[in-house]
Amino acid sequence: MGLTVYLSGEIHSDWRQEIIKGAQEDNLDINFISSVTDHEASDAAGDSLGPEPEQFWRDHKSAKVNAIRTGILIEKSDLLVVRFGGTYKQWNAAFEAGYCAALRKPYITLHSEDNVHALKEVDAAALAWAKSPEQVVQILKYISKK
Amino acid sequence: MGLTVYLSGEIHSDWRQEIIKGAQEDNLDINFISSVTDHEASDAAGDSLGPEPEQFWRDHKSAKVNAIRTGILIEKSDLLVVRFGGTYKQWNAAFEAGYCAALRKPYITLHSEDNVHALKEVDAAALAWAKSPEQVVQILKYISKK
Amino acid sequence: MGLTVYLSGEIHSDWRQEIIKGAQEDNLDINFISSVTDHEASDAAGDSLGPEPEQFWRDHKSAKVNAIRTGILIEKSDLLVVRFGGTYKQWNAAFEAGYCAALRKPYITLHSEDNVHALKEVDAAALAWAKSPEQVVQILKYISKK
Amino acid sequence: MGLTVYLSGEIHSDWRQEIIKGAQEDNLDINFISSVTDHEASDAAGDSLGPEPEQFWRDHKSAKVNAIRTGILIEKSDLLVVRFGGTYKQWNAAFEAGYCAALRKPYITLHSEDNVHALKEVDAAALAWAKSPEQVVQILKYISKK
Amino acid sequence: MGLTVYLSGEIHSDWRQEIIKGAQEDNLDINFISSVTDHEASDAAGDSLGPEPEQFWRDHKSAKVNAIRTGILIEKSDLLVVRFGGTYKQWNAAFEAGYCAALRKPYITLHSEDNVHALKEVDAAALAWAKSPEQVVQILKYISKK
Amino acid sequence: MGLTVYLSGEIHSDWRQEIIKGAQEDNLDINFISSVTDHEASDAAGDSLGPEPEQFWRDHKSAKVNAIRTGILIEKSDLLVVRFGGTYKQWNAAFEAGYCAALRKPYITLHSEDNVHALKEVDAAALAWAKSPEQVVQILKYISKK
Amino acid sequence: MGLTVYLSGEIHSDWRQEIIKGAQEDNLDINFISSVTDHEASDAAGDSLGPEPEQFWRDHKSAKVNAIRTGILIEKSDLLVVRFGGTYKQWNAAFEAGYCAALRKPYITLHSEDNVHALKEVDAAALAWAKSPEQVVQILKYISKK
Amino acid sequence: MGLTVYLSGEIHSDWRQEIIKGAQEDNLDINFISSVTDHEASDAAGDSLGPEPEQFWRDHKSAKVNAIRTGILIEKSDLLVVRFGGTYKQWNAAFEAGYCAALRKPYITLHSEDNVHALKEVDAAALAWAKSPEQVVQILKYISKK
Repeated sequence: MGLTVYLSGEIHSDWRQEIIKGAQEDNLDINFISSVTDHEASDAAGDSLGPEPEQFWRDHKSAKVNAIRTGILIEKSDLLVVRFGGTYKQWNAAFEAGYCAALRKPYITLHSEDNVHALKEVDAAALAWAKSPEQVVQILKYISKK
Repeated sequence: MGLTVYLSGEIHSDWRQEIIKGAQEDNLDINFISSVTDHEASDAAGDSLGPEPEQFWRDHKSAKVNAIRTGILIEKSDLLVVRFGGTYKQWNAAFEAGYCAALRKPYITLHSEDNVHALKEVDAAALAWAKSPEQVVQILKYISKK
Repeated sequence: MGLTVYLSGEIHSDWRQEIIKGAQEDNLDINFISSVTDHEASDAAGDSLGPEPEQFWRDHKSAKVNAIRTGILIEKSDLLVVRFGGTYKQWNAAFEAGYCAALRKPYITLHSEDNVHALKEVDAAALAWAKSPEQVVQILKYISKK
Repeated sequence: MGLTVYLSGEIHSDWRQEIIKGAQEDNLDINFISSVTDHEASDAAGDSLGPEPEQFWRDHKSAKVNAIRTGILIEKSDLLVVRFGGTYKQWNAAFEAGYCAALRKPYITLHSEDNVHALKEVDAAALAWAKSPEQVVQILKYISKK
Repeated sequence: MGLTVYLSGEIHSDWRQEIIKGAQEDNLDINFISSVTDHEASDAAGDSLGPEPEQFWRDHKSAKVNAIRTGILIEKSDLLVVRFGGTYKQWNAAFEAGYCAALRKPYITLHSEDNVHALKEVDAAALAWAKSPEQVVQILKYISKK
Repeated sequence: MGLTVYLSGEIHSDWRQEIIKGAQEDNLDINFISSVTDHEASDAAGDSLGPEPEQFWRDHKSAKVNAIRTGILIEKSDLLVVRFGGTYKQWNAAFEAGYCAALRKPYITLHSEDNVHALKEVDAAALAWAKSPEQVVQILKYISKK
Repeated sequence: MGLTVYLSGEIHSDWRQEIIKGAQEDNLDINFISSVTDHEASDAAGDSLGPEPEQFWRDHKSAKVNAIRTGILIEKSDLLVVRFGGTYKQWNAAFEAGYCAALRKPYITLHSEDNVHALKEVDAAALAWAKSPEQVVQILKYISKK
Repeated sequence: MGLTVYLSGEIHSDWRQEIIKGAQEDNLDINFISSVTDHEASDAAGDSLGPEPEQFWRDHKSAKVNAIRTGILIEKSDLLVVRFGGTYKQWNAAFEAGYCAALRKPYITLHSEDNVHALKEVDAAALAWAKSPEQVVQILKYISKK
């Protein structure tokens, strides 16, 4: 049973690559997908539709273009891994977790002990909390068992 | 047409009271509801179920008890106002916004200019962005017109 | 069995009043609701959130504020009457008809013979096509029978 | 991740071909689908079921046969591009946009500046507004990024 | 807990009155609703929208006007009783049973032994098969227990 | 765009073969599916689970086993053709039509003029009424257009 | 905000009365509902529809009549308390928990430490695990806070 | 039409192998899937996320990791076979049956006569009750008919 796993959240560390590499080493039949993780490209996602002098509207247009991709990805995925890093507010990651919770799409959170209290509502609706990409790979390996 | 409006998010300023007072002054037929906004009571929501030595599980139990109330509130509400304050991460607010987005439950965000970039995904799915409780009251007044 | 009927579409003629008056004359137990029908107020619905120099964004903000009300109204209504007048494009009326079709919310269209061809897709998903407010009242009277 | 994109709306200009050609030039992995765009064939879609002397019923039958195809297409598509041209009322395009909005199926509008005010409700629920087929291709290219 | 029960199907015998009377004698807190049971009025439901020379379209218009009422009734009801009499084909009753089955709306069938084989699919999705109005009243009494 | 079409209803004439043959002659990319059309096998579908002395329960068990197949088929199909023949009550066909109507799954009815009045509710929710297998093939050909 | 709480599961101890009494002492605005808790009446729920010599079918009929009430109750409730006692298998309680999980209807489990391992899947989807009726009352009190 | 069948429930006998073998002997085009049936591995499913001294939380974590797999499996399956063995409480099997019932996913129960009374609610929502793996194979064979 091949799985599609959407890697959501933090874009400033290489956690995605670690999970993908780990899954490959275990020969897991998983198709990983994610939003555009190039920060500048993501912020400029709506620029091709015309320039916006105001920051709010530039962000708004780009966020919506990204939402096209994100919405399709969530629809196509069997499971999400939602990563919260040490810096930035990452409200979009929490937003996607809430979106999944409402649709009964299962997700795993990935974050350090430091954020346990702040993420308690997001973790409460998650099906697992992992502290490292390795732990995520372990879970993926388990649920991929033949 | 009476409305039920759920006031979600920040619990460290009096924005809820300002909106409720503004709505009363305009005689709006609105029933405001919210999660338990007493921070300590909220963190201790699960304590009556027995003590937990580990912070993660204490938070987990409390977050789930709060989720009972939150889930019921969102179900019963016609509209949400989701407030992001200057401090704290407030991932639960973004989580609730995502939950509403998936269920097509309309919401308004309430936050300052400072958070425009960080909240762009949350704003992109919102039906309005207000910078002050007064602006929220204006919107509520408009949508309550006879 | 009291009904809630949402009167959607054209705001430049008095068709709403004719239907409401006809229903009152027949003592029908119907609560009529509608979007804000004051054209200028509707176009300015988002202005209280701050001025927008660009027409697109002013319209965008107002359309979304109106969508809060519209979305809630459709959710609360048992039936819609969707009116297409002789002038203006009224894409919002067709949009609301499509929205209802997807949610299995029944609607009646109200328009003259002139628009039969142009509205064929909207009529195809409607449960009745009325040519006059009087015909709508007849239908409402029939479905309200004790 | 291959995408299925439904091209909805205006049938009197070659915007579909421009988008398809642009996507091919960029080697995008996209399957484009659309309703029957031959105007006469579309108007006659129900004629094989027997002649109808009244225009309303001929239109009705054809609109419903077209709705079979349209309904299946929307169900199968990941994203819609909804085109509003300079002439004709194109209520069916607005109807399909509303249908998608209710189902949380993402769509992009494609229209000129002239229709900004008239389409404000349709644009308010869209995830992007493009002014040209080239801009649509840019968005498709972005969301198709590996 | 007050219940709303929709009495669907056969209109040529007085089974509705028997159930309503039985429920009243037992003081059950039940609101009974039904489609228009006056056969001629029902067949003429669409006539107020204009005459139709062809039988198919006259029936079509009336059936759709009746569907407005039926759709709203099913939405508002907690339970249906679907009655199949000895004569007539009553495909509309089977249609409403199927509609309920898809929506997980519970229904009871009411028919004699004679139709057991022909109604096996309709009965298979029902939660009870009653042979008489008295049996229906017994069930209503049971499920209304304090 | 390959289609899956479920052929529902009457099992005592060769309408299925006519449609399949017609579609093959036109090289339509359609996968036809149907319930088990061998009448005796269908009535005995539950017999392998043990004998039932009472006719009601034998029918009940078989109807439910058939419902497994039917439910899966409807879920997998893009479109249904629902056939009502001249004899038998065929309540199961009307039941499946109602089931589809509630799920917004499009269906075409196939029946003669004789049943127009009795089937008016079933036709009202259909997207086409065909009088012959040839007409069904014409519709399938149209909606399969490249 | 008045709540409707459905008390599901074990019928051989007085846990329902304890919760109801506790809620009354705290003046909570809660409407408690439950299935018929008289064991014999429940087992005989279908007997009024005619005798069944075989145990399976007698149980089947009664279970379905009870399912009418249960389905309506779950639909009307905001929250469930699902009680597992020391004896009996109570598969129906676990069944109702699963039903709620799929519908995102929140539930609390009530059981002793002894069943922690056996109920781990049911608890995993619950929003709280209480060990005594008193703990349930505490939770109800918390979520009912003004 | 290939089917995906999820084999749910008891893990202490070889009923899965019997069904799979029977289906292979009949050359049925069925893909069988199931949760992890190695009891120790299943109980330890969450251990890779870190040790838990308390039994409740160890079970909780493992149950949730298993729920990732289970939720995905149910989503992907066309039909479930839910097995209740002679020992153990198997509340998870009843939970999955309830989950399916709410989602209208068809399931067959597999259990001996001994459990007829205790499983009456679970059987009431099932589409078949089989007493042996052979009977399940017969049903699968029937619904797989070309």
